[in-house]
Amino acid sequence: MKIVRVRNDEGIVYGAVEPEGIRLYKGSPLFEWESTEVVAPFDSVQLLAPVFPTKVVAVGRNYADHAAEMGSGIPDAPILFLKPATSVIGPGAPIVLPPDSKNVHHEAEVAVVIGSVARNVRAEDAASVILGYTAANDVTARDIQRADGQWTRGKGYDTFCPLGPAIETEFDPLEGAEVICRVNGEIKQSGPTTDMVFGVAELIEYVSRVMTLLPGDVILTGTPSGVGPIVDGDVVEVEVESIGVLTNPVVKA
Amino acid sequence: MKIVRVRNDEGIVYGAVEPEGIRLYKGSPLFEWESTEVVAPFDSVQLLAPVFPTKVVAVGRNYADHAAEMGSGIPDAPILFLKPATSVIGPGAPIVLPPDSKNVHHEAEVAVVIGSVARNVRAEDAASVILGYTAANDVTARDIQRADGQWTRGKGYDTFCPLGPAIETEFDPLEGAEVICRVNGEIKQSGPTTDMVFGVAELIEYVSRVMTLLPGDVILTGTPSGVGPIVDGDVVEVEVESIGVLTNPVVKA
Repeated sequence: MKIVRVRNDEGIVYGAVEPEGIRLYKGSPLFEWESTEVVAPFDSVQLLAPVFPTKVVAVGRNYADHAAEMGSGIPDAPILFLKPATSVIGPGAPIVLPPDSKNVHHEAEVAVVIGSVARNVRAEDAASVILGYTAANDVTARDIQRADGQWTRGKGYDTFCPLGPAIETEFDPLEGAEVICRVNGEIKQSGPTTDMVFGVAELIEYVSRVMTLLPGDVILTGTPSGVGPIVDGDVVEVEVESIGVLTNPVVKA
Repeated sequence: MKIVRVRNDEGIVYGAVEPEGIRLYKGSPLFEWESTEVVAPFDSVQLLAPVFPTKVVAVGRNYADHAAEMGSGIPDAPILFLKPATSVIGPGAPIVLPPDSKNVHHEAEVAVVIGSVARNVRAEDAASVILGYTAANDVTARDIQRADGQWTRGKGYDTFCPLGPAIETEFDPLEGAEVICRVNGEIKQSGPTTDMVFGVAELIEYVSRVMTLLPGDVILTGTPSGVGPIVDGDVVEVEVESIGVLTNPVVKA
Protein backbone atom coordinates (compact mmCIF):
# COMPACT_ATOMS: atom_id res chain seq x y z
CA MET A 1 0.00 0.00 0.00
CA LYS A 2 1.20 3.52 -0.82
CA ILE A 3 0.08 6.08 1.75
CA VAL A 4 0.04 9.76 0.85
CA ARG A 5 -0.88 12.96 2.65
CA VAL A 6 -2.60 15.51 0.46
CA ARG A 7 -4.15 18.93 0.52
CA ASN A 8 -7.50 19.30 -1.21
CA ASP A 9 -10.26 21.91 -1.06
CA GLU A 10 -11.28 20.75 2.40
CA GLY A 11 -7.87 20.69 4.08
CA ILE A 12 -5.18 18.10 4.71
CA VAL A 13 -6.11 14.42 4.61
CA TYR A 14 -4.43 11.04 4.27
CA GLY A 15 -5.05 8.79 1.29
CA ALA A 16 -3.90 5.67 -0.49
CA VAL A 17 -2.78 5.45 -4.09
CA GLU A 18 -5.14 3.44 -6.32
CA PRO A 19 -4.96 2.98 -10.11
CA GLU A 20 -7.60 5.64 -10.84
CA GLY A 21 -6.64 8.18 -8.16
CA ILE A 22 -6.17 8.69 -4.45
CA ARG A 23 -8.61 6.98 -2.09
CA LEU A 24 -9.23 9.50 0.73
CA TYR A 25 -9.28 8.38 4.35
CA LYS A 26 -10.60 9.79 7.62
CA GLY A 27 -8.08 9.95 10.47
CA SER A 28 -4.42 9.04 10.29
CA PRO A 29 -2.54 5.80 9.59
CA LEU A 30 -0.40 6.70 12.64
CA PHE A 31 -3.39 6.24 14.94
CA GLU A 32 -6.73 5.22 13.48
CA TRP A 33 -8.03 5.72 10.00
CA GLU A 34 -10.89 4.57 7.82
CA SER A 35 -11.35 4.63 4.07
CA THR A 36 -14.07 6.76 2.47
CA GLU A 37 -15.96 6.35 -0.80
CA VAL A 38 -14.03 9.24 -2.36
CA VAL A 39 -11.29 8.63 -4.92
CA ALA A 40 -9.75 11.97 -5.87
CA PRO A 41 -8.21 12.32 -9.34
CA PHE A 42 -4.41 12.65 -9.11
CA ASP A 43 -4.44 16.21 -10.46
CA SER A 44 -7.06 17.41 -7.96
CA VAL A 45 -4.82 17.23 -4.90
CA GLN A 46 -1.41 18.53 -3.82
CA LEU A 47 0.96 15.93 -2.38
CA LEU A 48 2.50 16.91 0.96
CA ALA A 49 5.26 15.27 2.96
CA PRO A 50 3.60 11.96 3.89
CA VAL A 51 4.21 12.62 7.61
CA PHE A 52 5.02 15.63 9.76
CA PRO A 53 7.42 14.04 12.25
CA THR A 54 8.14 15.15 15.82
CA LYS A 55 11.76 14.33 15.01
CA VAL A 56 13.95 13.26 12.11
CA VAL A 57 16.84 11.09 13.27
CA ALA A 58 19.55 10.69 10.67
CA VAL A 59 22.57 8.44 10.36
CA GLY A 60 25.93 9.62 9.00
CA ARG A 61 28.25 7.62 6.72
CA ASN A 62 26.03 4.55 6.53
CA TYR A 63 27.21 3.50 3.05
CA ALA A 64 30.88 2.55 2.78
CA ASP A 65 31.42 4.23 -0.60
CA HIS A 66 29.98 7.52 0.72
CA ALA A 67 32.12 7.34 3.88
CA ALA A 68 35.13 6.92 1.57
CA GLU A 69 34.22 9.91 -0.63
CA MET A 70 33.93 12.02 2.57
CA GLY A 71 37.48 10.96 3.47
CA SER A 72 36.35 8.73 6.33
CA GLY A 73 36.21 5.07 7.19
CA ILE A 74 33.14 3.07 8.14
CA PRO A 75 32.08 4.08 11.66
CA ASP A 76 32.14 1.48 14.47
CA ALA A 77 28.63 2.50 15.51
CA PRO A 78 25.90 4.57 13.84
CA ILE A 79 26.61 8.30 13.92
CA LEU A 80 23.32 9.94 14.89
CA PHE A 81 22.19 13.49 14.26
CA LEU A 82 18.84 15.27 14.20
CA LYS A 83 17.17 17.40 11.56
CA PRO A 84 14.45 19.72 12.87
CA ALA A 85 10.83 19.06 11.84
CA THR A 86 10.82 22.55 10.34
CA SER A 87 13.21 21.30 7.64
CA VAL A 88 10.59 18.91 6.23
CA ILE A 89 8.93 19.72 2.89
CA GLY A 90 6.88 17.65 0.48
CA PRO A 91 7.13 16.68 -3.18
CA GLY A 92 7.34 19.65 -5.53
CA ALA A 93 8.15 22.18 -2.81
CA PRO A 94 11.32 24.18 -3.43
CA ILE A 95 14.62 23.52 -1.66
CA VAL A 96 15.71 27.04 -0.70
CA LEU A 97 19.47 27.67 -0.81
CA PRO A 98 20.47 29.79 2.19
CA PRO A 99 22.71 32.82 1.61
CA ASP A 100 25.07 31.45 4.32
CA SER A 101 26.29 28.56 2.12
CA LYS A 102 28.12 28.33 -1.17
CA ASN A 103 28.01 24.53 -1.37
CA VAL A 104 24.64 22.82 -0.82
CA HIS A 105 24.57 19.07 -1.62
CA HIS A 106 21.90 16.48 -2.38
CA GLU A 107 21.92 13.23 -0.38
CA ALA A 108 19.41 10.63 -1.58
CA GLU A 109 18.19 8.36 1.21
CA VAL A 110 15.57 5.85 2.26
CA ALA A 111 13.50 7.05 5.22
CA VAL A 112 11.88 4.71 7.73
CA VAL A 113 8.51 5.98 9.00
CA ILE A 114 7.78 4.84 12.55
CA GLY A 115 4.23 3.63 13.19
CA SER A 116 4.05 3.18 16.95
CA VAL A 117 5.77 4.30 20.15
CA ALA A 118 9.20 2.65 20.14
CA ARG A 119 11.51 2.47 23.14
CA ASN A 120 14.24 -0.13 23.66
CA VAL A 121 13.05 -2.13 20.65
CA ARG A 122 15.23 -5.13 19.83
CA ALA A 123 16.35 -5.55 16.22
CA GLU A 124 14.29 -8.72 15.86
CA ASP A 125 11.14 -6.79 16.83
CA ALA A 126 11.89 -3.70 14.72
CA ALA A 127 9.41 -4.57 11.97
CA SER A 128 6.54 -4.19 14.45
CA VAL A 129 7.18 -0.44 14.91
CA ILE A 130 7.60 0.41 11.20
CA LEU A 131 4.69 1.90 9.29
CA GLY A 132 6.60 1.93 6.00
CA TYR A 133 9.29 3.63 3.96
CA THR A 134 9.56 6.76 1.88
CA ALA A 135 12.25 8.63 -0.05
CA ALA A 136 14.19 11.52 1.47
CA ASN A 137 16.77 14.09 0.53
CA ASP A 138 19.13 14.89 3.41
CA VAL A 139 20.04 18.27 1.94
CA THR A 140 23.33 19.47 3.41
CA ALA A 141 25.26 22.75 3.34
CA ARG A 142 28.61 20.99 3.09
CA ASP A 143 30.71 24.07 3.84
CA ILE A 144 28.73 24.80 7.01
CA GLN A 145 28.74 21.14 8.08
CA ARG A 146 32.54 21.13 7.84
CA ALA A 147 33.05 24.54 9.46
CA ASP A 148 30.79 23.86 12.45
CA GLY A 149 31.91 20.33 13.31
CA GLN A 150 28.43 19.71 14.69
CA TRP A 151 26.16 18.92 11.73
CA THR A 152 22.98 20.50 13.07
CA ARG A 153 23.18 23.85 11.29
CA GLY A 154 24.47 22.58 7.94
CA LYS A 155 21.68 20.02 7.77
CA GLY A 156 18.96 21.94 9.62
CA TYR A 157 17.87 24.77 7.33
CA ASP A 158 14.20 25.10 6.49
CA THR A 159 13.40 23.00 3.35
CA PHE A 160 16.48 20.76 3.85
CA CYS A 161 14.43 17.58 4.37
CA PRO A 162 12.20 16.74 1.41
CA LEU A 163 10.13 13.59 2.12
CA GLY A 164 7.82 11.60 -0.15
CA PRO A 165 6.03 11.02 -2.39
CA ALA A 166 4.38 8.09 -0.55
CA ILE A 167 4.92 5.71 2.35
CA GLU A 168 5.25 2.21 0.91
CA THR A 169 4.14 -0.27 3.57
CA GLU A 170 5.36 -3.37 1.65
CA PHE A 171 8.95 -2.20 1.18
CA ASP A 172 11.83 -4.33 2.48
CA PRO A 173 15.31 -2.75 2.31
CA LEU A 174 16.89 -6.22 2.57
CA GLU A 175 15.65 -6.89 -0.97
CA GLY A 176 18.16 -4.35 -2.28
CA ALA A 177 16.13 -1.52 -3.77
CA GLU A 178 18.22 1.02 -5.64
CA VAL A 179 18.50 4.53 -4.11
CA ILE A 180 19.02 7.02 -6.91
CA CYS A 181 19.55 10.76 -7.16
CA ARG A 182 19.17 12.65 -10.41
CA VAL A 183 19.93 16.33 -10.94
CA ASN A 184 18.29 17.77 -14.05
CA GLY A 185 17.74 14.20 -15.26
CA GLU A 186 21.37 13.08 -14.87
CA ILE A 187 22.09 10.25 -12.44
CA LYS A 188 24.44 11.42 -9.65
CA GLN A 189 23.94 8.76 -6.97
CA SER A 190 22.92 5.13 -7.17
CA GLY A 191 23.36 2.37 -4.62
CA PRO A 192 21.34 -0.54 -3.27
CA THR A 193 19.81 -0.47 0.22
CA THR A 194 21.68 -3.72 0.92
CA ASP A 195 24.89 -1.63 1.00
CA MET A 196 23.88 0.02 4.30
CA VAL A 197 26.58 -0.46 6.94
CA PHE A 198 23.95 -0.67 9.70
CA GLY A 199 20.62 -2.11 8.58
CA VAL A 200 17.21 -0.70 9.48
CA ALA A 201 16.47 -3.18 12.27
CA GLU A 202 19.84 -2.48 13.88
CA LEU A 203 19.29 1.29 13.55
CA ILE A 204 15.88 1.08 15.24
CA GLU A 205 17.41 -0.86 18.12
CA TYR A 206 20.26 1.65 18.40
CA VAL A 207 18.12 4.80 18.21
CA SER A 208 15.29 3.55 20.43
CA ARG A 209 17.83 2.70 23.11
CA VAL A 210 18.55 6.45 23.31
CA MET A 211 15.31 8.23 22.50
CA THR A 212 11.70 7.12 22.35
CA LEU A 213 10.43 7.16 18.77
CA LEU A 214 6.88 8.42 18.28
CA PRO A 215 4.39 7.62 15.52
CA GLY A 216 5.37 9.58 12.42
CA ASP A 217 9.00 9.98 13.45
CA VAL A 218 11.47 9.36 10.67
CA ILE A 219 14.88 7.71 10.50
CA LEU A 220 17.06 8.64 7.52
CA THR A 221 19.27 5.68 6.74
CA GLY A 222 22.27 7.31 5.06
CA THR A 223 23.25 8.10 1.49
CA PRO A 224 25.26 6.21 -1.15
CA SER A 225 28.24 7.85 -2.87
CA GLY A 226 27.95 10.57 -5.49
CA VAL A 227 26.78 13.49 -3.37
CA GLY A 228 27.35 16.84 -5.02
CA PRO A 229 26.18 20.42 -5.35
CA ILE A 230 22.75 21.69 -6.32
CA VAL A 231 22.27 25.23 -7.55
CA ASP A 232 19.50 27.69 -8.29
CA GLY A 233 17.28 26.38 -11.09
CA ASP A 234 18.19 22.69 -10.66
CA VAL A 235 15.56 19.98 -10.32
CA VAL A 236 16.53 17.17 -7.92
CA GLU A 237 14.90 13.77 -7.96
CA VAL A 238 15.37 11.10 -5.32
CA GLU A 239 14.06 7.77 -6.54
CA VAL A 240 13.79 4.70 -4.38
CA GLU A 241 12.90 1.66 -6.40
CA SER A 242 9.30 0.51 -5.72
CA ILE A 243 8.59 3.57 -3.54
CA GLY A 244 8.58 6.35 -6.13
CA VAL A 245 10.24 9.59 -7.16
CA LEU A 246 10.57 12.63 -4.90
CA THR A 247 11.08 15.73 -7.05
CA ASN A 248 12.03 19.18 -5.78
CA PRO A 249 13.13 22.32 -7.57
CA VAL A 250 16.04 24.32 -6.16
CA VAL A 251 15.76 28.07 -5.67
CA LYS A 252 17.83 30.87 -4.11
CA ALA A 253 16.57 32.44 -0.89
CA MET B 1 4.31 36.64 35.59
CA LYS B 2 5.28 33.03 36.26
CA ILE B 3 3.55 30.61 33.88
CA VAL B 4 3.30 26.94 34.81
CA ARG B 5 1.84 23.85 33.20
CA VAL B 6 0.23 21.45 35.64
CA ARG B 7 -1.63 18.20 35.84
CA ASN B 8 -4.70 18.14 38.04
CA ASP B 9 -7.68 15.78 38.31
CA GLU B 10 -9.10 17.07 35.04
CA GLY B 11 -6.00 16.82 32.88
CA ILE B 12 -3.18 19.14 31.84
CA VAL B 13 -3.75 22.90 32.04
CA TYR B 14 -1.73 26.10 32.11
CA GLY B 15 -1.68 28.38 35.12
CA ALA B 16 -0.01 31.39 36.70
CA VAL B 17 1.66 31.46 40.09
CA GLU B 18 -0.15 33.67 42.64
CA PRO B 19 0.63 34.09 46.35
CA GLU B 20 -2.11 31.69 47.47
CA GLY B 21 -1.81 29.09 44.70
CA ILE B 22 -1.94 28.56 40.96
CA ARG B 23 -4.52 30.49 38.97
CA LEU B 24 -5.79 28.08 36.31
CA TYR B 25 -6.25 29.21 32.71
CA LYS B 26 -8.16 27.96 29.69
CA GLY B 27 -6.11 27.57 26.49
CA SER B 28 -2.38 28.13 26.13
CA PRO B 29 -0.13 31.18 26.51
CA LEU B 30 1.45 30.10 23.20
CA PHE B 31 -1.78 30.86 21.35
CA GLU B 32 -4.77 32.17 23.28
CA TRP B 33 -5.60 31.77 26.93
CA GLU B 34 -8.00 33.17 29.48
CA SER B 35 -7.91 33.13 33.27
CA THR B 36 -10.55 31.26 35.26
CA GLU B 37 -11.89 31.82 38.77
CA VAL B 38 -10.04 28.77 40.06
CA VAL B 39 -6.91 29.09 42.18
CA ALA B 40 -5.57 25.61 42.92
CA PRO B 41 -3.57 25.10 46.14
CA PHE B 42 0.11 24.42 45.35
CA ASP B 43 -0.06 20.88 46.71
CA SER B 44 -3.12 19.95 44.64
CA VAL B 45 -1.34 19.93 41.28
CA GLN B 46 1.74 18.32 39.73
CA LEU B 47 4.11 20.69 37.93
CA LEU B 48 5.04 19.59 34.40
CA ALA B 49 7.63 20.98 32.01
CA PRO B 50 6.16 24.44 31.30
CA VAL B 51 6.18 23.74 27.54
CA PHE B 52 6.39 20.68 25.32
CA PRO B 53 8.53 22.06 22.49
CA THR B 54 8.63 20.91 18.87
CA LYS B 55 12.39 21.37 19.13
CA VAL B 56 15.07 22.22 21.67
CA VAL B 57 17.94 24.12 20.10
CA ALA B 58 21.03 24.25 22.28
CA VAL B 59 24.26 26.21 22.13
CA GLY B 60 27.64 24.70 23.00
CA ARG B 61 30.44 26.44 24.90
CA ASN B 62 28.57 29.73 25.39
CA TYR B 63 30.34 30.64 28.66
CA ALA B 64 34.09 31.23 28.39
CA ASP B 65 34.95 29.48 31.66
CA HIS B 66 33.03 26.34 30.60
CA ALA B 67 34.71 26.34 27.16
CA ALA B 68 38.04 26.47 29.00
CA GLU B 69 37.17 23.56 31.32
CA MET B 70 36.23 21.51 28.22
CA GLY B 71 39.70 22.25 26.81
CA SER B 72 38.37 24.58 24.11
CA GLY B 73 38.45 28.24 23.29
CA ILE B 74 35.49 30.52 22.76
CA PRO B 75 33.84 29.66 19.44
CA ASP B 76 33.73 32.24 16.63
CA ALA B 77 30.05 31.59 16.10
CA PRO B 78 27.41 29.77 18.18
CA ILE B 79 27.73 25.97 18.03
CA LEU B 80 24.20 24.66 17.55
CA PHE B 81 22.85 21.22 18.37
CA LEU B 82 19.40 19.77 18.93
CA LYS B 83 17.94 17.79 21.80
CA PRO B 84 14.84 15.74 20.91
CA ALA B 85 11.49 16.74 22.44
CA THR B 86 11.37 13.25 23.95
CA SER B 87 14.24 14.24 26.28
CA VAL B 88 12.06 16.87 28.03
CA ILE B 89 10.84 16.20 31.57
CA GLY B 90 9.37 18.45 34.24
CA PRO B 91 10.24 19.35 37.82
CA GLY B 92 10.49 16.36 40.14
CA ALA B 93 10.66 13.79 37.35
CA PRO B 94 13.69 11.49 37.52
CA ILE B 95 16.74 11.85 35.29
CA VAL B 96 17.35 8.25 34.20
CA LEU B 97 21.00 7.26 33.77
CA PRO B 98 21.36 5.08 30.66
CA PRO B 99 23.38 1.85 30.94
CA ASP B 100 25.43 3.02 27.90
CA SER B 101 27.21 5.76 29.89
CA LYS B 102 29.52 5.79 32.88
CA ASN B 103 29.78 9.58 33.08
CA VAL B 104 26.56 11.62 33.00
CA HIS B 105 26.96 15.35 33.77
CA HIS B 106 24.67 18.17 34.88
CA GLU B 107 24.71 21.42 32.89
CA ALA B 108 22.66 24.24 34.42
CA GLU B 109 21.26 26.63 31.82
CA VAL B 110 18.77 29.38 31.14
CA ALA B 111 16.19 28.40 28.53
CA VAL B 112 14.45 30.89 26.26
CA VAL B 113 10.84 29.95 25.49
CA ILE B 114 9.71 31.18 22.08
CA GLY B 115 6.23 32.72 21.95
CA SER B 116 5.56 33.21 18.23
CA VAL B 117 6.68 31.96 14.84
CA ALA B 118 10.21 33.28 14.34
CA ARG B 119 12.07 33.26 11.04
CA ASN B 120 14.93 35.59 10.12
CA VAL B 121 14.38 37.66 13.24
CA ARG B 122 16.93 40.46 13.73
CA ALA B 123 18.61 40.74 17.13
CA GLU B 124 16.91 44.09 17.76
CA ASP B 125 13.50 42.47 17.27
CA ALA B 126 14.24 39.32 19.27
CA ALA B 127 12.27 40.39 22.35
CA SER B 128 9.06 40.30 20.30
CA VAL B 129 9.27 36.51 19.80
CA ILE B 130 10.15 35.60 23.41
CA LEU B 131 7.41 34.38 25.73
CA GLY B 132 9.77 34.15 28.70
CA TYR B 133 12.55 32.19 30.35
CA THR B 134 12.83 29.03 32.40
CA ALA B 135 15.58 26.91 33.94
CA ALA B 136 17.00 23.87 32.18
CA ASN B 137 19.43 21.05 32.74
CA ASP B 138 21.28 20.05 29.55
CA VAL B 139 22.07 16.58 30.92
CA THR B 140 24.98 15.09 28.97
CA ALA B 141 26.57 11.65 28.80
CA ARG B 142 30.08 13.08 28.55
CA ASP B 143 31.75 9.81 27.52
CA ILE B 144 29.27 9.30 24.67
CA GLN B 145 29.46 12.95 23.60
CA ARG B 146 33.24 12.59 23.28
CA ALA B 147 33.19 9.17 21.63
CA ASP B 148 30.60 10.09 18.98
CA GLY B 149 31.93 13.49 17.95
CA GLN B 150 28.35 14.45 17.07
CA TRP B 151 26.62 15.44 20.33
CA THR B 152 23.14 14.17 19.48
CA ARG B 153 23.29 10.80 21.22
CA GLY B 154 25.15 11.91 24.35
CA LYS B 155 22.66 14.74 24.90
CA GLY B 156 19.54 13.09 23.47
CA TYR B 157 18.55 10.36 25.92
CA ASP B 158 15.01 10.37 27.30
CA THR B 159 14.87 12.52 30.50
CA PHE B 160 18.05 14.46 29.55
CA CYS B 161 16.24 17.83 29.30
CA PRO B 162 14.55 18.85 32.56
CA LEU B 163 12.71 22.18 32.11
CA GLY B 164 10.94 24.35 34.69
CA PRO B 165 9.56 25.10 37.15
CA ALA B 166 7.94 28.18 35.54
CA ILE B 167 8.27 30.52 32.59
CA GLU B 168 9.14 33.98 33.94
CA THR B 169 7.89 36.56 31.47
CA GLU B 170 9.66 39.51 33.15
CA PHE B 171 13.17 38.01 33.11
CA ASP B 172 16.02 39.86 31.39
CA PRO B 173 19.33 37.96 31.05
CA LEU B 174 21.15 41.26 30.54
CA GLU B 175 20.51 42.04 34.21
CA GLY B 176 22.94 39.25 35.19
CA ALA B 177 20.89 36.63 36.97
CA GLU B 178 22.98 33.88 38.56
CA VAL B 179 22.70 30.38 37.03
CA ILE B 180 23.38 27.83 39.73
CA CYS B 181 23.60 24.06 39.92
CA ARG B 182 23.53 22.20 43.23
CA VAL B 183 23.99 18.45 43.64
CA ASN B 184 22.68 17.16 46.99
CA GLY B 185 22.66 20.74 48.23
CA GLU B 186 26.27 21.53 47.31
CA ILE B 187 26.90 24.30 44.79
CA LYS B 188 28.70 22.92 41.70
CA GLN B 189 28.08 25.64 39.09
CA SER B 190 27.44 29.33 39.41
CA GLY B 191 27.76 32.06 36.79
CA PRO B 192 25.84 35.16 35.73
CA THR B 193 23.84 35.26 32.50
CA THR B 194 25.88 38.31 31.51
CA ASP B 195 28.85 35.94 30.97
CA MET B 196 27.23 34.41 27.88
CA VAL B 197 29.53 34.65 24.86
CA PHE B 198 26.57 35.13 22.52
CA GLY B 199 23.57 36.86 24.09
CA VAL B 200 19.97 35.79 23.71
CA ALA B 201 19.06 38.36 21.04
CA GLU B 202 22.09 37.35 18.97
CA LEU B 203 21.22 33.64 19.39
CA ILE B 204 17.65 34.18 18.22
CA GLU B 205 18.92 36.00 15.13
CA TYR B 206 21.46 33.23 14.46
CA VAL B 207 19.09 30.28 14.99
CA SER B 208 16.09 31.82 13.20
CA ARG B 209 18.29 32.45 10.16
CA VAL B 210 18.61 28.66 9.88
CA MET B 211 15.37 27.17 11.16
CA THR B 212 11.94 28.60 11.84
CA LEU B 213 11.20 28.65 15.56
CA LEU B 214 7.66 27.74 16.56
CA PRO B 215 5.67 28.76 19.66
CA GLY B 216 6.91 26.68 22.58
CA ASP B 217 10.30 25.95 21.04
CA VAL B 218 13.19 26.32 23.44
CA ILE B 219 16.73 27.66 23.10
CA LEU B 220 19.22 26.49 25.74
CA THR B 221 21.79 29.24 26.16
CA GLY B 222 24.82 27.31 27.42
CA THR B 223 26.24 26.42 30.82
CA PRO B 224 28.78 28.09 33.12
CA SER B 225 31.82 26.17 34.40
CA GLY B 226 31.65 23.48 37.06
CA VAL B 227 29.91 20.69 35.14
CA GLY B 228 30.40 17.29 36.73
CA PRO B 229 28.97 13.83 37.26
CA ILE B 230 25.60 12.89 38.72
CA VAL B 231 24.97 9.38 40.02
CA ASP B 232 22.11 7.19 41.17
CA GLY B 233 20.46 8.69 44.24
CA ASP B 234 21.62 12.28 43.68
CA VAL B 235 19.25 15.22 43.70
CA VAL B 236 20.12 17.94 41.17
CA GLU B 237 18.85 21.49 41.41
CA VAL B 238 19.18 24.13 38.71
CA GLU B 239 18.37 27.55 40.08
CA VAL B 240 18.08 30.65 37.96
CA GLU B 241 17.78 33.74 40.07
CA SER B 242 14.26 35.25 39.90
CA ILE B 243 12.95 32.27 37.87
CA GLY B 244 13.05 29.49 40.45
CA VAL B 245 14.53 26.11 41.26
CA LEU B 246 14.25 23.05 39.00
CA THR B 247 14.77 19.91 41.09
CA ASN B 248 15.20 16.39 39.71
CA PRO B 249 16.25 13.14 41.37
CA VAL B 250 18.71 10.89 39.54
CA VAL B 251 18.02 7.17 39.12
CA LYS B 252 19.56 4.21 37.30
CA ALA B 253 17.71 2.78 34.30
